[in-house]
Order: sequence, then structure tokens, then C-alpha cells
Amino acid sequence: MSRKVFYISDGTAITAEVFGHAVLSQFPVEFEALTIPFVETTQKAEAVKAQINDCFITTGERPLVFHSIVKAEIRDIIYSSECIDYDFLNTFVAPLEDQLGVKAVPVTHRTHGKANHSYEARIDAINYAMENDDGQTLKHIDKADIVLLGVSRCGKTPSSLYLSMQFGIKAANYPFIEDDMDNLKLPEVLKKNKHKLFGLTIDPVRLHEIRQSRMENSRYSSLRQCRIEVKEVEMMYKRERIPFVNTTNHSVEEIATKILDVTGLERHMF
Amino acid sequence: MSRKVFYISDGTAITAEVFGHAVLSQFPVEFEALTIPFVETTQKAEAVKAQINDCFITTGERPLVFHSIVKAEIRDIIYSSECIDYDFLNTFVAPLEDQLGVKAVPVTHRTHGKANHSYEARIDAINYAMENDDGQTLKHIDKADIVLLGVSRCGKTPSSLYLSMQFGIKAANYPFIEDDMDNLKLPEVLKKNKHKLFGLTIDPVRLHEIRQSRMENSRYSSLRQCRIEVKEVEMMYKRERIPFVNTTNHSVEEIATKILDVTGLERHMF
Repeated sequence: MSRKVFYISDGTAITAEVFGHAVLSQFPVEFEALTIPFVETTQKAEAVKAQINDCFITTGERPLVFHSIVKAEIRDIIYSSECIDYDFLNTFVAPLEDQLGVKAVPVTHRTHGKANHSYEARIDAINYAMENDDGQTLKHIDKADIVLLGVSRCGKTPSSLYLSMQFGIKAANYPFIEDDMDNLKLPEVLKKNKHKLFGLTIDPVRLHEIRQSRMENSRYSSLRQCRIEVKEVEMMYKRERIPFVNTTNHSVEEIATKILDVTGLERHMF
Repeated sequence: MSRKVFYISDGTAITAEVFGHAVLSQFPVEFEALTIPFVETTQKAEAVKAQINDCFITTGERPLVFHSIVKAEIRDIIYSSECIDYDFLNTFVAPLEDQLGVKAVPVTHRTHGKANHSYEARIDAINYAMENDDGQTLKHIDKADIVLLGVSRCGKTPSSLYLSMQFGIKAANYPFIEDDMDNLKLPEVLKKNKHKLFGLTIDPVRLHEIRQSRMENSRYSSLRQCRIEVKEVEMMYKRERIPFVNTTNHSVEEIATKILDVTGLERHMF
């Protein structure tokens, strides 16, 4: 039976999820997680406590609780439940107070709220990625922080969106298609923005699988076509000295942070 | 002078950033953060150590370091630098080992890697959000987990993308436009999927500002038009008993988690 875990917060609970997931993924154990955000009243906290106690009675094991609750009276209700409590934020607050020589001023909703953030810039970046996806237009390339290149279905769109959403980076992307392959070269407007270009590539067998699930038994999805496109595009990256990354075994988080690492683009925090 | 902070990891460093940001945002202090991902070799670790020591010499203060490094020999090099070290993951590993009765098996890249995740489902959700944005098509509504409604520029697109990216939710979205306002009603295909509908609304003054920055002094961006649209749409939500949330003072994280909280849709972790 999998061990029960609660992620609880008076805000979005995203920090509790990210942190708890990072710690628990180090254990060869099955977990079953439930996230409860916006626990902002003592009434709601009592309901969560009842749920935790119920879980203990049903399973015979105290559930693990990762929480980031700012208000003491709400936190105390959760503490008083039949849980194993991991107060991962407050554990570090006291040592930081000593180090910084100031007291913490905890505020609910600050981590993932809108206050004190260049939130507009982030939304602009998301809209930019949407509007400049898949080579729809290269008109706004002067506003791009980066332009991702690659064949169809190599990961350009999710990577562009992640760069904008997580890091506030304006990422356009441009596809090379079948018709380009006979004489593959960079469009002039991309050549002029060469310092912004970053290539993606992918294992042809994996590409073939992805394309098959979208357009089965087409020329587009054939292994032969995938091999040709990947080979031509990689040769072009090398010829033009465009940095590139192979997306085959990497998540969007890894692809995006690798791109930032190689290019030196600044990561913004939201 | 702002206190220097390093987020260091042998992976993407996203967990270190999210955690460090959550803790430090509780302090009324200016921080200047630098993220260094993919510290996977002793050579790279030595370069980071030199950078930390240099920072100490230049500023006269030991920089704060939040790290999530799995390999002991890499970690030890960072430890030996002139930093104040917050080993936020390992602090919780020993208590969890006691509680779970098993030893941790740390693996680099597990948290934000592709392994053991329903990664395809997430990419499918992102592609779904892209292809079903802004009412482009309602053909695939049967595959939607949720359909966000609202006037132009109230936050539908960023919210849909965040739901797909962070939680693997298939979110379509549908706009109500100026021409709809005289006799606002739900299209038949949406009526048939009423259990999937979720409304967004926004303060008309804020909407006016956002639209002004895109299309200055147009009828579309006029405060009068913004007031009419918001009023009509909110009345419709109430008439049709569609749950809705006001996005004005909320981040995409807050909007997305609020939607999941109200609808009970399951949050997936990636």
C-alpha cells in the first residue's frame, strides 16, 4: 500500500508540492499525494485535520504532511492532527534570521502572488511565445530573447512556452519543413539574428514515434524522412555554428535550463 | 547592498530556486540571486567554489547557498567554499528515512527529469492548450478537462497554458467578443459540456489598461466597452451557474490552483 502524503498551504501549495516531490522522489517508495491549497480559515483547517485523522484511522499510518502555512493559528490546527509534519520553510527561517540579522515578516501569497514581481513582463513573454510559435511570423524577431530552431515535433513549442512561463524569456521558434531539406539554409532574417538562434535536435527513431502518433504511415512520419531531416538540420547547425541540444531524453525543464546555461540568458523568478 | 544568493544544482536548479525564493521572500531584505545548474563534475564545482569565494572577497559577506546536489564529492567542494550553506533537501532525508524505514536512493535528474513520469501526457496537454486556444476550434472539446471562458485579455491563455504545463490538464479556452454582447449566450456545443466550463472575469479598469497597451484609443480598449463586456459576461456566468474567478489581483499560479480547487480536477506532478 502506498504511503499517503498531504501538501497543504494557505496559498497555491505549489512550493509544498515542488519541495515534497523533490524530497520524496529520492525514496524507492510509492506515495499517494493529495494537495490542499487555500487553507485560509480555521474552519477549513479543521476540515483538513479531520481528513488527516481519517486517513490515519483508515490506513493505520500517519500521513506525511508538507505544509507552508503562514498563520500560526491555522498551522497549529494542522500540527494537532495525526500527521508526521515537515515544516520545510520554517526550519530555515530561524537560521536565516540569525544570518541576516532581521526578523522574517511572513506574508501569505507572496511566493506565487503578483506583488513585487515583474508580472507584466512574464505575461508579455507568454503572449510573445504564443504569437511567435512555429514560424507564424518573423516580424517580431527583434523583440525575441531567443529563437529556437528545429524540425517539426522536436520539442520547440513546449520549450518556448516553458522559457516564457517559468523564466519570463521571450522565445520565438521556427520550424524546418520537408520542402526545406533539398537545400537547407537559414532564412536571411534569421541569419541577421544569429546570436539569438538555438537549435533543437532529436533522435530520429523517437521523432518517428512521435510523428506516427499524429500522422500514421505518412511520408512525414516515416523513419526515412525523420532521418533525412535530422541529419540535414544537424549538419546545418554545425556549418553555421549554432549551439544545439538533443531533446530526446530530456524534460522541458532540462531543455530550457540547458538553453539558458549555454546562452547565458538571465533567469527571472516569478 | 543586496545580499548575494546562489542556487546550485547538478540538475536544472529549479527546485533550489523555488525553495530558496519561497524562504527568502519572507524577509524584508534585497537579494541578488545567481542560478548555476548542471554542476555535474568536480571541475565545474571548483569553478563555482572560486566564484563563491570571489563573491565573499568582493562583498565582505558570505553568500547564501541553496543547493540540491546529489553526489557527495561535488557537494563537499561547495561546502568547502566561503558560503552559508542551506542543504534544504538532505535536512529532511534522515528524518524521512527513519519514518519510512528505508534508505534514500538519491538519483540526479529525477525531480525534473523525464523518467517515471507521464511525460507524454503532459506534452499532449501543452499541445492541446496551444491548438484549442482562443476558440480556434471547439472540435476537440470532448477531450478537454476544462474550458475557460472570458472576454478578450482577461487571462484565459496564460491560465490554460499554466494548467497544461504545471498540472498536465487539457484546457481549452473560448472568448466572448464584442459582437456577442447584444444577446450573450453560450454556444450549443459549450452548453452540452457545461460541467467543463469555468469562467474568468476581471476588473474593467484593469482590462481597459491591458487593452490600451495593445490597441490604444480603440473602441475595443475603451473603458465603456470593457465595462459592458465584463458586466454581460458576469451576468451570464450567474444565469448559467458557471463557477468563475476574478483574475485581477492573481497570478497564473493562483488562478490555476483556484480552478483546480473549485472543480476538483486532479493535479498531476511533473
